Amino acid sequence: MIETVTEIKRLRALVRSWKKEGKRVALVPTMGNLHEGHFTLVRQARRHADKVVASVFVNPTQFGPNEDFDRYPRTPQADVEGLAAAGCDLAWMPSVEQMYPLGVDMTTRISVPGTVTAVLEGASRPGHFDGVCTVVSRLFNQVTPDVALFGKKDYQQLAVIRQLVAELQFPLEVIGAEIVREDDGLARSSRNQYLGEAERAAAPQLHRVLREMRAACAAGLPRQLVEQSAAAALGEAGFVVDYAVVRQRDLAEPVDGQAGERVALLAARIGSTRLIDNLEF
Amino acid sequence: MIETVTEIKRLRALVRSWKKEGKRVALVPTMGNLHEGHFTLVRQARRHADKVVASVFVNPTQFGPNEDFDRYPRTPQADVEGLAAAGCDLAWMPSVEQMYPLGVDMTTRISVPGTVTAVLEGASRPGHFDGVCTVVSRLFNQVTPDVALFGKKDYQQLAVIRQLVAELQFPLEVIGAEIVREDDGLARSSRNQYLGEAERAAAPQLHRVLREMRAACAAGLPRQLVEQSAAAALGEAGFVVDYAVVRQRDLAEPVDGQAGERVALLAARIGSTRLIDNLEF
Repeated sequence: MIETVTEIKRLRALVRSWKKEGKRVALVPTMGNLHEGHFTLVRQARRHADKVVASVFVNPTQFGPNEDFDRYPRTPQADVEGLAAAGCDLAWMPSVEQMYPLGVDMTTRISVPGTVTAVLEGASRPGHFDGVCTVVSRLFNQVTPDVALFGKKDYQQLAVIRQLVAELQFPLEVIGAEIVREDDGLARSSRNQYLGEAERAAAPQLHRVLREMRAACAAGLPRQLVEQSAAAALGEAGFVVDYAVVRQRDLAEPVDGQAGERVALLAARIGSTRLIDNLEF
Repeated sequence: MIETVTEIKRLRALVRSWKKEGKRVALVPTMGNLHEGHFTLVRQARRHADKVVASVFVNPTQFGPNEDFDRYPRTPQADVEGLAAAGCDLAWMPSVEQMYPLGVDMTTRISVPGTVTAVLEGASRPGHFDGVCTVVSRLFNQVTPDVALFGKKDYQQLAVIRQLVAELQFPLEVIGAEIVREDDGLARSSRNQYLGEAERAAAPQLHRVLREMRAACAAGLPRQLVEQSAAAALGEAGFVVDYAVVRQRDLAEPVDGQAGERVALLAARIGSTRLIDNLEF
């Protein structure tokens, strides 16, 4: 049985009672409109903890002024049903007022500086990661989990949160979960439902281009050429490219000719929808 | 018996074992060089918890570039002895590297916006409260106390921390402790030891002027006149005044003629030493 909680007092009482029994608690933070990617996170959380809390909160502070906060899909009833089916114990659904008692504009902000927030999504979406850190810190303090799970689809977000947790020394473990894809390779995302029919048909090109980038790197092609070819291929497929890059796993630029683990990352718009994807190798 | 801990693993293990036994944990954050004011906090903490942790850490991020970080007095051995005598269970003495693993300049910062950080100390010491919030959040996450005690001498700091805890929703209670004074009225402070003989003789004027401000407000004098007289009196006593003000308890400017609880706050330099004090009424 899942319990839906909207009051912080009730949340704290439940988590406290679990901890008293020696149970480990996992948190899966979400913005709702849940899909198979989220449910996989919940099932994975079960393997790391006795109790799984999923938060459902569309966070205003991580949307830019021209982004899709208002039209971001909100489906609370379906979310709770899906979470229950996935074996989640508690759906934490706070209000904006609960999360930001002094208002969104007067809220205490948390800023992770450096490369990890400055490049890629940080460059395309100024203030986005401040908003993510600001809300995730509150969720950690509200739920006090032993472990928190984040999907690798938001690859840079995961890196930022790892740095946030290490730096502020939150007493919890961060686990990154693999990307869940459709049969045609498209990474699952709440934004996929914005896609028109032709856009949806083109969208799997993102994953195809990522695999080509991996193959080109494996074949020893220069990184800049790999990135240029990827951007060109996406352009031909009808995308407007934000970035198409190969990076070290910590998102620093690789030194040419040096071996090591890499990640290819893409962000591109098709129609009015912005999609991101990545591939580690 | 007090235990001195410098490793986060050991700290977490001890606190975890206490919590398993159902014990309540209090935190008294300090910058060391402890005096009766701190020891009073420790004894008071005992009344709210079964175990008392005092942190001793001179925090570089709350000192400005022209402030006294390097010459701030460090007396770790005397601190531990004093804490033990006051009944403290654990002295948490992290290194700068432990507290700021990526370095002081690249650290994740926490900013409380608004009046509470903008005025008075915030205006005199830009970035000071960011540094306070940045270190206090780490201490909360390291120690995970049920209750944290802060002295009212740093009146504005206490207000900022209350807002930080309410906003980020740290799972703990903040308690403000009364100011401890010398017989002549001077508030206990680590900075008092910087004072030369003549400066030390003049220093109790701060408390005298605060009492005069209280009396003048009680007599119905206009606030601006009270503040001007206070600044003039301090100037005559040899101080260079940063501010001498009457505020509402939340540090907002009082509306003239309206009754309510107030606090008078002073900051002034004597020689090269900056002292602060306040009085609620």
